[in-house]
Amino acid sequence: MSKEITSREQDYSQWYNDLVIKGSLADYSAVRGCMVIKPYGFALWENMRDQLDRMFKDTGHQNAYFPLFIPKSFLSKEAAHVEGFAKECAVVTHYRLKADPGGAGLVVDPEAKLEEELIVRPTSETIIWNTYKTWIQSYRDLPLLINQWANVVRWEMRTRLFLRTAEFLWQEGHTAHATSEEAIAETRQMLGVYAEFVENYMALPVVRGVKTESERFAGAVDTYCIEALMQDGKALQAGTSHFLGQNFAKAFDVKFSDKDNKLHYVWATSWGVSTRLVGALVMAHSDDDGLVLPPRIAPLQVVIVPIYKGQEKKDILDDQCRQLAAQLKAAGVRVKFDDNDNNRPGWKFAEYEMKGVPIRIAMGLRDLENGTVELARRDTKEKSSLPLEGLAGKVPALLDTIQQAMFDKALAYRDTHITKVDTWAEFEALLDGKGGFLSAHWDGTAATEEAIKDKTKATIRCIPLDSVPEEGACILTGKPSSRRVLFARAY
Amino acid sequence: MSKEITSREQDYSQWYNDLVIKGSLADYSAVRGCMVIKPYGFALWENMRDQLDRMFKDTGHQNAYFPLFIPKSFLSKEAAHVEGFAKECAVVTHYRLKADPGGAGLVVDPEAKLEEELIVRPTSETIIWNTYKTWIQSYRDLPLLINQWANVVRWEMRTRLFLRTAEFLWQEGHTAHATSEEAIAETRQMLGVYAEFVENYMALPVVRGVKTESERFAGAVDTYCIEALMQDGKALQAGTSHFLGQNFAKAFDVKFSDKDNKLHYVWATSWGVSTRLVGALVMAHSDDDGLVLPPRIAPLQVVIVPIYKGQEKKDILDDQCRQLAAQLKAAGVRVKFDDNDNNRPGWKFAEYEMKGVPIRIAMGLRDLENGTVELARRDTKEKSSLPLEGLAGKVPALLDTIQQAMFDKALAYRDTHITKVDTWAEFEALLDGKGGFLSAHWDGTAATEEAIKDKTKATIRCIPLDSVPEEGACILTGKPSSRRVLFARAY
Repeated sequence: MSKEITSREQDYSQWYNDLVIKGSLADYSAVRGCMVIKPYGFALWENMRDQLDRMFKDTGHQNAYFPLFIPKSFLSKEAAHVEGFAKECAVVTHYRLKADPGGAGLVVDPEAKLEEELIVRPTSETIIWNTYKTWIQSYRDLPLLINQWANVVRWEMRTRLFLRTAEFLWQEGHTAHATSEEAIAETRQMLGVYAEFVENYMALPVVRGVKTESERFAGAVDTYCIEALMQDGKALQAGTSHFLGQNFAKAFDVKFSDKDNKLHYVWATSWGVSTRLVGALVMAHSDDDGLVLPPRIAPLQVVIVPIYKGQEKKDILDDQCRQLAAQLKAAGVRVKFDDNDNNRPGWKFAEYEMKGVPIRIAMGLRDLENGTVELARRDTKEKSSLPLEGLAGKVPALLDTIQQAMFDKALAYRDTHITKVDTWAEFEALLDGKGGFLSAHWDGTAATEEAIKDKTKATIRCIPLDSVPEEGACILTGKPSSRRVLFARAY
Repeated sequence: MSKEITSREQDYSQWYNDLVIKGSLADYSAVRGCMVIKPYGFALWENMRDQLDRMFKDTGHQNAYFPLFIPKSFLSKEAAHVEGFAKECAVVTHYRLKADPGGAGLVVDPEAKLEEELIVRPTSETIIWNTYKTWIQSYRDLPLLINQWANVVRWEMRTRLFLRTAEFLWQEGHTAHATSEEAIAETRQMLGVYAEFVENYMALPVVRGVKTESERFAGAVDTYCIEALMQDGKALQAGTSHFLGQNFAKAFDVKFSDKDNKLHYVWATSWGVSTRLVGALVMAHSDDDGLVLPPRIAPLQVVIVPIYKGQEKKDILDDQCRQLAAQLKAAGVRVKFDDNDNNRPGWKFAEYEMKGVPIRIAMGLRDLENGTVELARRDTKEKSSLPLEGLAGKVPALLDTIQQAMFDKALAYRDTHITKVDTWAEFEALLDGKGGFLSAHWDGTAATEEAIKDKTKATIRCIPLDSVPEEGACILTGKPSSRRVLFARAY
């Protein structure tokens, strides 16, 4: 079985789809826009989810679960929110099917029409704040620090595996605070958690910033984001953290009494990352031979492949491999010994390269004689012959080395792809050529932002948190600007 | 704040609701039949889920994720399945809302009607077997051992927190095998996993059995189940494992080629447990003062409450408590030191009794002088004074003791509530009196089963796996019977 994949140069978009499908991460489903996450892809997501969950709990958050359905009227309660989310959503109108009296199979039972339609949650602010109304009375009930792992549905017209699907898995944090300052601190803290996760676990450097008004979450006062860069020079929003002010508290009438028994509206945040991160991971690190996964979240960190001809010394070889696998497992390494006789070593090599397993260890008959193995790094393709003795003890450090090397490589790419631009001609040329983030002046108006988007498909990804005040002229209008922002074409 | 709960004797059903609400496990939501799982309840579910997940992985299963929506036509493909699941379900008919031209808020956009309606999954056999068709070609692709953690929706008319909700969380295993024998072995293995989990972690003894034809899962050849007994003498189905034969393989045309290149339909199983188990846990162990949770899955295993008057020696007391908490945490115990000044010790005692924390440790000023603490067991209410020195080392064993004591108590109750019955008069009297499982002869017909249900509301919970052949006469009809079955009223 050969699993050829399109090269990045040939067709970047097809390369991505090939990786996801042939790397066994996901599959198309029979339902428009929805995907099936395959076991290997789900194991990757589980590792990401479990690490994020630990980080949420370490920062004082608890998980809970709120209904999948949102009454239609709830969506209208927050004026900006309804604009953003009511448009493309799955609407439940009936609660029963029946046999068609005409014999045409199942039909919707018109008798079973809901009085009020239910929306499959596109995000849960409304149902959650409707609940918080009953949970929050006093300052003693605050802060309320809750996260939910859930599926959500947004009826996207153009979908792509992981990057944009009608249904996706995510987590959404929803917190309630007594003061604006505390809520803003929470918003920034969670942005920091996301940045730390994406950089340290996904080996993907990010820019931390704040969105412009037109790119804000529907209902937010401020949207903070982390932006990553893909290998084709396009940006990808990897996570957002929103300061919601008192917008949802006012929409759902959630007040608390302070120590002096005075009533105030509650301050809110929400923040989320999704299975979209899997798409970012694939696009950022992989190559033309398949996935390249960072060791810290790779479902398999090491695969051991025995190489033999016929049955000669097969038992001894298998035994050595099995011992090594046991030692690695004891050292906390996620390891697989692939002793499947149906596939040849060459097939296995290609398969685990496709799947992005960070380290491949091969052991043949000559190795057996010499007491060595051949170790191959997936990220650099480097091969080396190493003594079997003491190998298991060295692997954890090598996995760390690979993790760091992947981050460094992505960082070097990213850093050489942030370009200061001061003329419109260069701005357009760079977008069509090198790509990446363009650091340019902008006059601060939504009209200019929109005009630039119309002309170039580039959007303002963020105003970086570490940006410095600098007098300049807007890249399009020449009007005065006080700081640079980051533009890019984006997923 | 006083949290009085209805006693079991007064109103068992209200007692249950009080426990769930006041024990902070769950709350009603704005959506009919859907509940909100609160942080404390969700932490309990997480502990259950994580343990089950480990057991599934230890038996070779992998997690994956399939779409929330099922095309309407899929439900009709398996004849029995459609009967069971097409009736009460949430139907998505549209994918867009729009502003009402008449100004009445949001309305469903009639232009955005789906060509084929989508059903929110009530269970996923159909969408999964439609996917397996593309995953399974050869015997090398088998067995396929997959599990999914997901939310599902069944439009129940009468709902109860955890026990029966329109949306609930569950896991559904879906496996594919080359032979009938292997699939039956898998079905039984997973029943064993469920029984082990419910008995060893939830401290709840179960009867393992097989369902009668009329109680089978819609589409199954055989449904195996575990049945538990609640304190009111009613049974509760705690988990099911189905041997599906080739029904779904035939409905979705899933065949594999064997070593001789001959095509065969694939053999299937599915198995699931849900958040309903939380309801079972509450009903089985709790008392009139609140929840009683088994240590192995309790979100908190130990709570430490300091008792002081004014500020005298408060710092020293807090310091001792904090040290003990740290020692317990180091010993792997889930512990909380409640140093909240807003609530008095008496309030805290009641609160943690309500929440079912297995061990409460109180430390007062006299304890400080004596180097002791007061330790209270939630299950027996026993209190004892123990030396602080070395306490942390003894707690894990005490938690095991409590776990075992809870199981033994539930087992004794269950065993005294399985009654052999041979006359109809006694059958009816026992159902209205002592309750529990009635071990009785049945003539093996669905008609008799139905008649008994109509007369008494009792159903055949299962034919126990360990039942022995015994000649007898049917409890209702007097017709010949070859073995006893277990009847009960059930949740």
